[in-house]
Parts: sequence; C-alpha cells; structure tokens
Amino acid sequence: MTCIVQKYGGSSVADVDKLRKIARLIGEVKRQMIDVAVVVSAMGKTTDNLLSMARDFSPKPPRREMDMLLSTGERITMSLLCMAMHEIGIDAVSLTGSQAGIITNDRHNDAQVIEVRPFRVQDEMAKGKVVIIGGFQGVSYKRDITTLGRGGSDTTAVALAAALDAERCEIYSDVDGVYSADPAVVADARHLSEVSYPEMQEMSTAGAKVLNAQAVQFAKEKNIAIYARSSFQPGRETIIRRLSPGTIIGVQAVVREERIERIRLSGSDALERFQQAVSYLESEQVPVKEVHVTQIADNGDHSKASFVVSAGHIYGWEQTKDEMKEKVGPDITFDSDLATVSLIGEGLNRNNQTLLETINLLKEHDIIVSGITTTSFRISLLVPQNRIDQSVQLCHARWVMNS
Amino acid sequence: MTCIVQKYGGSSVADVDKLRKIARLIGEVKRQMIDVAVVVSAMGKTTDNLLSMARDFSPKPPRREMDMLLSTGERITMSLLCMAMHEIGIDAVSLTGSQAGIITNDRHNDAQVIEVRPFRVQDEMAKGKVVIIGGFQGVSYKRDITTLGRGGSDTTAVALAAALDAERCEIYSDVDGVYSADPAVVADARHLSEVSYPEMQEMSTAGAKVLNAQAVQFAKEKNIAIYARSSFQPGRETIIRRLSPGTIIGVQAVVREERIERIRLSGSDALERFQQAVSYLESEQVPVKEVHVTQIADNGDHSKASFVVSAGHIYGWEQTKDEMKEKVGPDITFDSDLATVSLIGEGLNRNNQTLLETINLLKEHDIIVSGITTTSFRISLLVPQNRIDQSVQLCHARWVMNS
Repeated sequence: MTCIVQKYGGSSVADVDKLRKIARLIGEVKRQMIDVAVVVSAMGKTTDNLLSMARDFSPKPPRREMDMLLSTGERITMSLLCMAMHEIGIDAVSLTGSQAGIITNDRHNDAQVIEVRPFRVQDEMAKGKVVIIGGFQGVSYKRDITTLGRGGSDTTAVALAAALDAERCEIYSDVDGVYSADPAVVADARHLSEVSYPEMQEMSTAGAKVLNAQAVQFAKEKNIAIYARSSFQPGRETIIRRLSPGTIIGVQAVVREERIERIRLSGSDALERFQQAVSYLESEQVPVKEVHVTQIADNGDHSKASFVVSAGHIYGWEQTKDEMKEKVGPDITFDSDLATVSLIGEGLNRNNQTLLETINLLKEHDIIVSGITTTSFRISLLVPQNRIDQSVQLCHARWVMNS
Repeated sequence: MTCIVQKYGGSSVADVDKLRKIARLIGEVKRQMIDVAVVVSAMGKTTDNLLSMARDFSPKPPRREMDMLLSTGERITMSLLCMAMHEIGIDAVSLTGSQAGIITNDRHNDAQVIEVRPFRVQDEMAKGKVVIIGGFQGVSYKRDITTLGRGGSDTTAVALAAALDAERCEIYSDVDGVYSADPAVVADARHLSEVSYPEMQEMSTAGAKVLNAQAVQFAKEKNIAIYARSSFQPGRETIIRRLSPGTIIGVQAVVREERIERIRLSGSDALERFQQAVSYLESEQVPVKEVHVTQIADNGDHSKASFVVSAGHIYGWEQTKDEMKEKVGPDITFDSDLATVSLIGEGLNRNNQTLLETINLLKEHDIIVSGITTTSFRISLLVPQNRIDQSVQLCHARWVMNS
C-alpha cells in the first residue's frame, strides 16, 4: 500500500476549526486506501506561551527542562487531532516522538535525529489506523525527552518518511511553497515550482523559514521528494527534489536571517580564546557559524578569530554572552544588530561577478557590508539589522527579476 | 539517608509565585540532607482547560487520546518547578510518570498502578538531585500513556513512597488535613489529627476529596504514614496511619458525593440485562458501585437489579447512557440528581441504632432517602442532590457534635 507522510505546521492547526478541516483532509487521503502518517506542530501560540511561562522563572532555564516543557505543545495537538478524526469515523492513534521511535543525541533544545525505529508507527498503520505523531521531539539514548530545534517538525516528517520508505513527504503550512524572496518583504517575489536539495539546504541555513535545513539534508540522503503546500488553498506547490545538475543556473532566491551577532577576538592568544569561547558555547549547545580564524605566526598581535551566532533563536543569549565574557577575558567584541542577506543559486561561485556587483549595489545605497561568506550555492552578506529588508529588495530586483 | 515523598496539588502550584514558594520549601528540606521526591499535579485550571479543548471536538473522545492530552498538564508543572529550583541553586530533574517507573494496566482514564520501578528516581537522588515527578500518570505495559483517574497524583505519591521505602508521604493541598465534614458546608466541622486507613478509605470512596482511595489502600498495604498538610499554612495536619483497633469509636466524619445516578432494571431477565449493562460499562471503563441484585426464582417478574454510578466524574456520560439503553432495551430506569451522604467511623454496624436514627432524622426534614448501603466503616444514604448540604449538616450536628 502506498504510504505518505504529511506534516502540518502551527498555523495550520491553530484552532478547533482548522484541526477539524485538517482531519477531513486526512480522511480524504485515507479513504483512497493510502497509509498516512501525520506529523503535527504545536498549535499557534502554544510554544510562545510555554516559553513565556519558563521566562517567568529563569532567564536561562535548564535545557533538559525546557524540552520537557515544550514537548507538551505537540502532544496537545496530536491528541486533539485524533479526537477530531474519530468524530468523522476515521480510526487514528497519536504517538509521541519517543513512541514513534525518533531517537536523538542528547543535545537538548537542538537535538539531532540519529536513528528512527518506526516499528510502532508501522504496527498501527497495519491495523488500518492513521498515525498522528508529535513533531519536533524525540527521545535521547539516555531516555530523556529532547526537542529538535526550530522547525524540527519538518525533520520529524522527513526522517519518518525515510524510515517508512514513504512515497513522498508533504509539508503543509500557510504558504503555498517556496518563493524567490519573502513575499512580505518583496511584493513581486516569484513562486518556485522546483528547488534542488542543495539550494533548499542553503536557503534554510540562510534563514528561509519554509523548511528546516536538517530536514532537507535527510530528504537528500534518502532521496525523498518534499512537497511544500498550503494547508487550505490547494493549487501551487514547490517540489524539493533531486534535479539534474545545471537545470537551474543563477540566483534563484534571496533570503534573510535577522538578529545575527558576530563575536570577534584578537591578540596573540586569539586562537586559544576562540577555542575557549567555542567550547563554552558547545557546552551551552549554542551553534556557531561562519568561523574565520587568521593566525599570524610571527606577529601574534595580528591574529584574529570571529564567528557568527543566530542570536534570535538562542534562549537566554544575553546571559550566555556575559558568561562567555567572564571565561574568555575582556578582549572580545560583540557586533550586534546585524542580519544576513543571502543569494541562493547554483554556480554562484563560478566567478566573482555576482559578489562584486552585490557589494557595489549595497554600497550605492549606503548599506555597510560588514562580512561576507560564500559557498557553492550561496553568497551571504552581513548588513545592519535595520537595512535588511531594503537589502533583500535591492538584491531581488537586481538578480532575480533581472534574470 | 532519610527519604521522603511530597505531593503538591493543583491549587498549591497554581501560579508563578506559588511555584517559587514551593521551590523554597523543598529547598529547605533538601538542605537538611533529606532525599526528596516531589509529585506534582497540573497547575490550577490546566486540566479543566484541556478537558474543554477536548469537548470542542467530541462529546466522548477516545480515552487513550484523553490520557495523552491530560498528561501534558503535570509535565508543564514539573518542568517549571525544576526551573524554579535551579534558580535558587537546588539541582533538580523532572521525570514523567513513565520515566519514574509508574507501570499501570491499560484501563485508560482510570488506570491502576500495578508496579513501580523507581530505578531512575533512585539514580537521580543518588546524584544529589531533587526529583520532580509528574503525578496522575503512568505507562501501560502496552507502552501507552495512562492516567490514574481523579486524585491520581496522591496514588503516584504513595506508590512511590512505598517503592522508595520512604519514611513518610506528605500530601500538600489548600486545606490543613481532614475534617469531620467539609467546612464549606458545615461551619463547625472538626479538624481530625489522626484517621485510620480503613476510615480514610471509606471517606475517599464516599466522596471526600482530600485523598484518593487507591492511594490510601497503597499506604495501608505498605504501612506508609500519610501526612495531609496545607502547603502555605504550617501548623495542623492530619496523619493517616495504622491505629490500634478501638482507638476511635463512633461517627468520625460525614462526607458527601454529588451527582450520583442510580440505574435500575426489572423484569424476568433483569439479571441478564444487568450483566449486559455492566459489561458494556466495563468496556467503557465506567466503574459501578453499590450493586444490588434480587433474583426471585419462581417469579421472575419480581427480579430486579440496581447499581450506582458517580456520574459527575464520567466524561461523556449522557452519550454512554444512550448507548447503554440501546444495548439493554427500554426497561431501564435512571434515577438522576441524587447524592450520597455517608457517616464514617469504626463500629457503625455493631447495631442498627445509628442507621435507624439517621433515617428518622432525614425523614423529619422531609428528605427522601432512596437507597442505603452499609459497610463496617460506613453508612451511606442516597438523597436528592438539592438536599445534600442540608443532609450533611443534619448528620454532622446529630452524630459528630453530639459525640
């Protein structure tokens, strides 16, 4: 029997009416004799409410306890959706991440899925049931409840689709797929009908919220096609899948990530202090990105190290910064209020033309570029947080609409 | 090292301030080098809110899904309490019922604890941590999340105290122990400093809300003393423990249970239909009480059967009644809007004096007694729901204040 995995995000399950609608949509698929596993997020503002409860107690609560707290959100959604399905005569059963066999490492708040043992999902499916799974959560090999970080329900869905050998993985949200830029910022953003895995990975890494980067990586490894769709407005969709190399060339999309902070260290012991800083952040489970280290052997005074942190996603960041300062000493600089604008597309690094023209474009508009990183599929530029929307608009007009 | 188990009820953990106070109280105990396991209920109105969400979907949702939904309430409390403890420098870890080894049968919504495997609680205690456990929940041998029914957090606490061989089990709520009647109904109700296990069991069975009957049964079997105390007003307490027989004689307390419904069957096949009704209710996991069957062999027309259901605690009762009617046929009578007033005390059945005088007392006030049950420790009378408070007051004045 054909098997598909569907995932419904927080805005798709925000209230009673929406959950009822989702139940009917799932029922239609099930009646076509298709096995369905459904991954759900927490309803609307549930996660925000839980976070604000935690903040009442502590600026930096223990991460294990945050996971215990936050994982309840998806459990509420999944049991209510099951009830809605029973009401329309579809047999359904809810499973927690742990029950569904989502095994992770013990990196609380940002755990990685290391294995999926979907035996119970398969058992319940074999009994003819729709299986509703709480997204965003798993269980560590230490038998603690973990969460997978921002957008983690996508990862649950794709990882399950891979483990179940599903035909496809459908990701439902309030947008009908992936655009060349956020339509809220760029009015004439283009809808993309197909995106390759590496491009989608780069887009997610660079701040696009449609899909989680780890989810895309899973999909790529297992060659699972992801269909990004709107829950309630059938029509357009974006398919993320393997594309022949060279199918699409040039800048496909412009994405942004807000609330970026850069940390800089200098002086003859910059490398040692960089190691201290990063190992402290590792102990706090804060991921670092875009590391640059320059070590000048014969003149240590010119040695420097820098890296970037997505400050907007780190709970208790201000306190973490203070503690890092104590650990590494005073010669540390924080460049706050930054954001990144990223151009995404294959072949961007074949020559430097795109990079040079982009720097000039931003310069013409007095936007200070304070950092640059490039990969095969991406050019990212650090700009002031308060100029980010304008930067996206300028780059989109220059590279996407002009192509 | 001495080990104690504490349990804090919903009103003791209702908000941020109260959780902070509880954290400090636990901290004081821990600093005396006492191992503490803390069982918590859901915060204030959480369970009611979750129930009302479920009602939005279904008058009678699947019980398994109700358990999945309701068990999130205690998980929120326990993770927040851990955070509050960390803030005051006490190392604490939260465990779900499942992680704490509370193994139950699969009777969802009203599961029985069949085994406690507290290895993980002991491990964490050995590391010097306060262990915070979600009450009211367990895991079935089928690996499904179960809940223990009304007041189930008491059962969690006592069962854990037994498994941990704890010195005592302290049950904290907003009242400072057990009274001879509900002080909200009887202004001069007496505080009881000691209650025996069987009396307390009868009181709980007959509707007293201070302690859950299954919890008392566990405590009796394992000889665990229960200290019922007020969370925020230290002072008086009630100790529930083994008392020498004959220590206390006469009516100790008058308790009530509201929203009782009696089901009556008559006719020559009353016994068969009674079996059908009860086995249907068993499949719906509705407990029945006070069964009376009269089978007249040579004149079946006079055969009758009746039993009583605590309708106030059964989710989806109206629909269950309709389905029972369909199964058993039309010759079934429901006596609704009843309540029971119960006299509790040792030796009540040594003669019939107490029973006869009580019937007369209620009769004098035109309160219709529509049923009577007696055990060694209890006399229960079915009265109209709208006369229950007056019945409690009359019985308390006659038997408790007069003794």
